[in-house]
Amino acid sequence: MLDSLFNPKKVAVIGASSKELHIGNRVIKNLIDFGFKGEIYPINPKADEIRGIAAFKSIADAPDGIDVVHMVIPAKFVPQAMEDCGKKGVKNVIINSGGFSETGPEGAAIEEAFLEQAKKYGIRVFGPNCQGIINTDPKVRAYCNFTFTFPDPGAISIVALSGGVAEVIHQAFSAMGVGTRIYASNGNACDITIPELIRYLGDEPGTHVIVTYVEGLKDPAGFLAACTEVAAKKPILAMKAGRTKEGAKAAASHTGGLAKEDIATDLIFEKAGVLSFRDEGELIQAAVAFAAEPIPRGNRVGIITNTGGPAVIGTDIMAAAGLTLPPLSGKTERVLKETLFAEASVANPVDVLATGTAEHYRACLDAMMEDDNFDGVFVNFVTPFFVDTDSIAREIAEVHRQKKKPLVCNLMTDRRQWTETVRILADAGVPCFALPGEAARAMSALVRYRQILDREKAEIKPVADADTDKALQLLDRAKSAGRSMLLADEVYGILEAYGFDVPKWRLAEDPASAQKAAGEIGFPAVLKADAPSIVHKSDAGGVVLGLSDAAAVFKAAEKMQKNLSAPDLRFFVQRQLPPGLELILGARAEQGLGHAVVFGLGGIFVEVLKDVRFCLTPVSPAEARRMLSSIKGAALLDGVRGQKGVDKESIVDAVVRLSQLLSDLPQIKEVDLNPVFAFQDRVAVADARILL
Amino acid sequence: MLDSLFNPKKVAVIGASSKELHIGNRVIKNLIDFGFKGEIYPINPKADEIRGIAAFKSIADAPDGIDVVHMVIPAKFVPQAMEDCGKKGVKNVIINSGGFSETGPEGAAIEEAFLEQAKKYGIRVFGPNCQGIINTDPKVRAYCNFTFTFPDPGAISIVALSGGVAEVIHQAFSAMGVGTRIYASNGNACDITIPELIRYLGDEPGTHVIVTYVEGLKDPAGFLAACTEVAAKKPILAMKAGRTKEGAKAAASHTGGLAKEDIATDLIFEKAGVLSFRDEGELIQAAVAFAAEPIPRGNRVGIITNTGGPAVIGTDIMAAAGLTLPPLSGKTERVLKETLFAEASVANPVDVLATGTAEHYRACLDAMMEDDNFDGVFVNFVTPFFVDTDSIAREIAEVHRQKKKPLVCNLMTDRRQWTETVRILADAGVPCFALPGEAARAMSALVRYRQILDREKAEIKPVADADTDKALQLLDRAKSAGRSMLLADEVYGILEAYGFDVPKWRLAEDPASAQKAAGEIGFPAVLKADAPSIVHKSDAGGVVLGLSDAAAVFKAAEKMQKNLSAPDLRFFVQRQLPPGLELILGARAEQGLGHAVVFGLGGIFVEVLKDVRFCLTPVSPAEARRMLSSIKGAALLDGVRGQKGVDKESIVDAVVRLSQLLSDLPQIKEVDLNPVFAFQDRVAVADARILL
Repeated sequence: MLDSLFNPKKVAVIGASSKELHIGNRVIKNLIDFGFKGEIYPINPKADEIRGIAAFKSIADAPDGIDVVHMVIPAKFVPQAMEDCGKKGVKNVIINSGGFSETGPEGAAIEEAFLEQAKKYGIRVFGPNCQGIINTDPKVRAYCNFTFTFPDPGAISIVALSGGVAEVIHQAFSAMGVGTRIYASNGNACDITIPELIRYLGDEPGTHVIVTYVEGLKDPAGFLAACTEVAAKKPILAMKAGRTKEGAKAAASHTGGLAKEDIATDLIFEKAGVLSFRDEGELIQAAVAFAAEPIPRGNRVGIITNTGGPAVIGTDIMAAAGLTLPPLSGKTERVLKETLFAEASVANPVDVLATGTAEHYRACLDAMMEDDNFDGVFVNFVTPFFVDTDSIAREIAEVHRQKKKPLVCNLMTDRRQWTETVRILADAGVPCFALPGEAARAMSALVRYRQILDREKAEIKPVADADTDKALQLLDRAKSAGRSMLLADEVYGILEAYGFDVPKWRLAEDPASAQKAAGEIGFPAVLKADAPSIVHKSDAGGVVLGLSDAAAVFKAAEKMQKNLSAPDLRFFVQRQLPPGLELILGARAEQGLGHAVVFGLGGIFVEVLKDVRFCLTPVSPAEARRMLSSIKGAALLDGVRGQKGVDKESIVDAVVRLSQLLSDLPQIKEVDLNPVFAFQDRVAVADARILL
Repeated sequence: MLDSLFNPKKVAVIGASSKELHIGNRVIKNLIDFGFKGEIYPINPKADEIRGIAAFKSIADAPDGIDVVHMVIPAKFVPQAMEDCGKKGVKNVIINSGGFSETGPEGAAIEEAFLEQAKKYGIRVFGPNCQGIINTDPKVRAYCNFTFTFPDPGAISIVALSGGVAEVIHQAFSAMGVGTRIYASNGNACDITIPELIRYLGDEPGTHVIVTYVEGLKDPAGFLAACTEVAAKKPILAMKAGRTKEGAKAAASHTGGLAKEDIATDLIFEKAGVLSFRDEGELIQAAVAFAAEPIPRGNRVGIITNTGGPAVIGTDIMAAAGLTLPPLSGKTERVLKETLFAEASVANPVDVLATGTAEHYRACLDAMMEDDNFDGVFVNFVTPFFVDTDSIAREIAEVHRQKKKPLVCNLMTDRRQWTETVRILADAGVPCFALPGEAARAMSALVRYRQILDREKAEIKPVADADTDKALQLLDRAKSAGRSMLLADEVYGILEAYGFDVPKWRLAEDPASAQKAAGEIGFPAVLKADAPSIVHKSDAGGVVLGLSDAAAVFKAAEKMQKNLSAPDLRFFVQRQLPPGLELILGARAEQGLGHAVVFGLGGIFVEVLKDVRFCLTPVSPAEARRMLSSIKGAALLDGVRGQKGVDKESIVDAVVRLSQLLSDLPQIKEVDLNPVFAFQDRVAVADARILL
C-alpha cells in the first residue's frame, strides 16, 4: 500500500540545500509553505538548519519512523543513500534527481543498483527523475514536489509520468479556482508504476476523478488491468499524445525511445472504459465537471439561458455529441409561462432574457431538476449590469448543492468586475466555464461516461468447439520447418479447427491431381499457388479465379507451373464462393498486450477509406458488435440500394473465434482473413494468411 | 462611409437617464469611463445633468454637428425622434432599444417607419435592438455601447449581429490581456449591414484581423461579395453556429426565424477565403495570433521547448493539421550543439531542458528565424523556479519584435507568481497561450490562411460553346406547359446545349417507334418511361437496362405500357454506357446566392458515406479541382486496386459547365445528374433530372 507515501508523517530530504534555487531547498520550502502537518528533517552534513528547520548530518542521525525521503543528490550517490535509508527503516524514497535510465546504459546501471538496495530493505521508490507527489488532504498537506503550483483541496487526482503536461493540467485547475486531491508525477517509474498509482487512487476516498496523461506505456497489460478495475467505480479521464508520426518521434526523443506511434493505447482506453480525450483543454474542463457533478442518467439536456447565441453554440456542440434536447414537459411549460417574462422563450433552450431575474432562473432550475424529460441542466449565464447577478448566482448555487442532476454553467462575465457573482458560484463548487463550447463539451463528457457505464458488458464467450490441439500441431509443423509464413493447408486447417466457415479445399502436387481435386470439390473453383518460396502469390500470377470445369483447372495449373518455376510449388484448389459483401478480418500481436483484432469492410473501404475498427483480445461478443456498428459503412451490413443485409451475428461469431484463436495461440504474430464474404445466412473466408 | 459612426466627435443620448441601472445612463458612464475624446450631450426633458454632464431638453436644443445619437427610448417614440434627428442634421443613430422587427409585425412596422425618416434625412441607422459600437483608437475612445468590457487598444475588430457571442469573444480577449480595435454588434441590422461593416473594417488601418460570428445571413450574396473583397487583403476569422438541426432551431427561436440549418454559410466562407472555425475558443486563440504575427510563408514549423510532453502535444496537433516539422539545417545544428547543454536535444523540437537559459532560448530563436527550413516558430516555455525566466521572456520578446517569422508561445506558468515574466511577454505583444494545444492550433490557423492566399485563383472560365437560347426555349416549353419537372427530351436537350457528353437518345411515342429508335442509336440500349404523370420512374418499373436487340426493346416497351398505364406515356430510348466510375453531379438553388453545385462519387459513397463536396456558383476550374481532390474517396479518381484512373479534367469541365448552366438559367431550382459515368477518356451523363 502506498498510504505511507501519500500520507507521510515524517519527511526527510537528503540533499537539503541552503541555496534558494536548489531543489533540495525548494522541496523544504514547499512543505513549509503548504502547511505540511508532519515533521521535516533536512539532511545536510554541513548546515545546522535549512529554512529555519534543524538539519541532521546524515539520515542515520534523524529520528526513526521516516515515511518519505526525498533524494536530491547526484545519481552516483543514490545507491549508497538507499542503503542508508534501508538501514534506517525508511518506507518510501522519492528521487527527484535525474541521471538514471533516461540518460543511457550507465544511468540504467545505477538505477538497477539502487533498486536492488531498495528491494532488499522493502523500500518503495517513486521516480527517479520526477517531480514527486502532492496530497492536499487538510489532515496531511504533503507537498513533496519541487514545482510551484499551490492547489486548493479538491476531488481531482492527477497521475502521469511526464511532469510537464501533468503540471500544465494542474496549473489549469488552479487558474480556474478548482482544487485537486493528489498529484503524482513519477518520471522513470522504476518501482512504483502508473498502474499501481491508479489502483491506489481508485481506493482513495478523496479522489472522485482520476486524470492521466500518457505518451507510451511501460506495462500496457498492467495499465489495462488497473484501469479496467478502477474505471468501473470511478471515472478515469486520459489523454494520449504522440499520436502522429511526428508526435511519436518527439515523444521518443524526450522519454528515451519509450514512445512509438501506436493504436494500442486507444484500444486500452476503449477496452477499460477510460474516457479518452484528444485535447488537453477538453480533458481539463471535463475533469472539473466530473469532480463536482453526479453522472447523468441519460443524454437528455435542458438549457437555461439569458442570451441567445451562446445557447445556440452549446446546443450545436451537445447535439453533435449525440445528446438530445427534449421539449419541456407540460408541467414545466405551465410553470414557466406563469413565472417568466411574457417575451421569454418557454421551450428548450429556455431563454429567460437578459432582464431575467433570480426568481426566473430558480423557477427554471427547479422545474428542470424535477422534469423527467431531462438528465442534466446546462446554464448560460451572462451578467448584465441591470440585473442582480449575485442573486442569480445564489439560486444556481443553491440548486447545485442539491445534486439532483448534473449542472454545468457557462458563466460569461468580466471576472474583475463581477467578483462576487464569480465567488458565489466558485464557493458552491458549480463547474463554471467562460465559453459555451467548453461547458457543452464538459456536459457531453459526463454523458459519454454514462454511455460507457451502460454499454453491453464485455463477457467473454469461450469458443466451445475449438480444436486447439490440432491447430497447435499445424503451427508446430511450420515452426519446426523454420517457416514463419504458414502454408495453405496449415492456414485452412487451423481455421477449420476453430470452426471458421471455409470453402471446401484440396491440396494437389501436380496439374493432374489439381484437376481431380477440383472435380471432387465442385465448380467454380479457385486455383492458388502454394509454396514457401512464393510470398505474394497474387502479384506473381499465382491465383486464378472462376475456373468452371476440370479442364480449365488443369490448364491453369500447367500455366502456373510454367510461369512460376518454383520447385516447391503445390496447388491449392478451393471451391469459389459466390459474390458476397467483402469484409476483412485480421489480428496482429501488440507488444505486451495480446493481439489487436481488426474488422472492416473490404476493398476500397479498407484501401481508400481505412474504415476499420480494432479491439484488443479477448474480444467479447458485445465488443465485436460495437466494432460492427461503429464503422462508417455500417449501413452496408444492413443492406443498402435494395440489397438485403448480411448475417451480422455470424460476423460477430467469426470475430470472437478469431480472438479465441489468438488467445489460445499467442505465438501467432499476424492473421489476415481477406477477403471474407458475408451473405444473408453465412460468413465464409475466401483467402487467408497466417504469420508466426 | 461609416467614419462618422466609428470616429464620432459629438455623441448625444436620447433617453439619457438619471437611474444608474438604466441603459440611458450606462452609455454615458461608459463614454466617460472610457475617456471619450469628444463631447457628450445627454438629452432628457426633465434632468439638468446626467453623471455631471449638462443635459439638453431635446435634441433640437443640443449643439449642431452631432455624429452619433443613441436612442434608448420605447420603440413607439423612435420614428418621431428620428425625424427630430433628421431636422437637426444628425449623421448616425444607434438604437439600443428593442421592440422592433424582432418582436413581430407591429414592431416591424415601427422599424419601417423610422427607417423611412432616416432615409429621408440621410441618417445611417445602427441596430435597432443592439449593443452598439466601440472604437479603442486612443484619438477617439468611443464607447457607444452599454455592455461592460473595457478593452485595451488592439488590432482585432469584432463584428456580429448577436451581441451575446460577440461579447463572449470580446471578454475572452480582455481576459487574455489582448486588445481589440473596433467592436460592432448591430442587432436587427435594419440599415447598416454586416457586409458594410466588414468592408469598412477592411479599409480601417487599425484593424489587422476581423472576427465575426454568424447564425444566419440576411444578405448572403452581399456578405459573400464583401468577404471576398476584404479577405484578399486582411484575414477574416468566422464562426457559424446553428449547424445542427437542434442548434438551428435554437437560433431561430432567438433571432425570429432568421436562421436555418444550411450549408450555404460554409460555402460562402470557403469561396470568399474566410477562415472558418467550429469552436469559439479556437477562433479566439487564432485571432490573438493573427493580430500580432506575420503570415507564414509556408507550413514548416520549428519548435523550441524546455519541457518534453507539451512539445509532443504541440507536434501532434500541428502535424495533424498538415504542418511539417523539418529537421534543423546543418548550420542551426552546429550553432546549437555549441551553445546548448550537452544533454539538450538538438533536433526539431529542440529541447533546451528545464535548466535552459535565456542565452539558450535566444540562440534557438535566432537560428530558427534565420534557418530557411522554417516558416514559423513555436515556443513551449515552462517557468522553473531555478532559472531566470524574466530574461528568457525578454529574449523571446526581443526576437518577436523583429517580426521575421510568426512566433507563438505556449507559456506554462502560474500567472499569479510569475507576474513579471508574463508582463514582459504581454507588453511585447507575444501571443501567449496557457495550453500547448491552443498555441499549436493558433499556429495552424496562420498556416491555413497562407494556404488560402496561395490557393489556385478562382478564375471563372466561361463555357464558349453553350447554346443558352436553345436551353431557354426548352425551359420555357416546360414552364408554359405548367410543368416544374422537365421531360426527358428537355433535360437531355438542355444538357446537350451546354456541351455535356450524353449518350445518343430518341423519344418514341409507342413500342414500335421505340424499337426503330433503338435500331438507329445502337445496342445495348436503355428504355425509360417518360411522362409528366410519372415522378419516380425507377420505382415505378419505368427503367429497363441492358436491352441487347430491337426485339427486346419492343417487348420491354410493351410491358411498360401495360404496367404503367399512363395516358401521357412516351418512351425515352438511350444508348447504354459501358460500366465506368459512378459519379454524381448536381445543383440546387440557394436562397439569395445562386446555386450550390455538388460533386461526389456515386452509389454507396453518396448514399452511405455522404462523401460529397459543394461549391457555390460560379464554380471556377480551380474550385472544381479542389472539389475533386477533397472528397474522401479521391483516390478512386486516380485508380485503385489495379484500375486505371479516370479523366479528371473532363469531370472538372462538367462541373464548370453545370455551374455555367445555372448561372445562365437561374430559374432552374435543382439539377441531378445521377449517375454520371467517368472513364479514362470521357465523362458521360447516364441519367438526369431538372426541376424548375
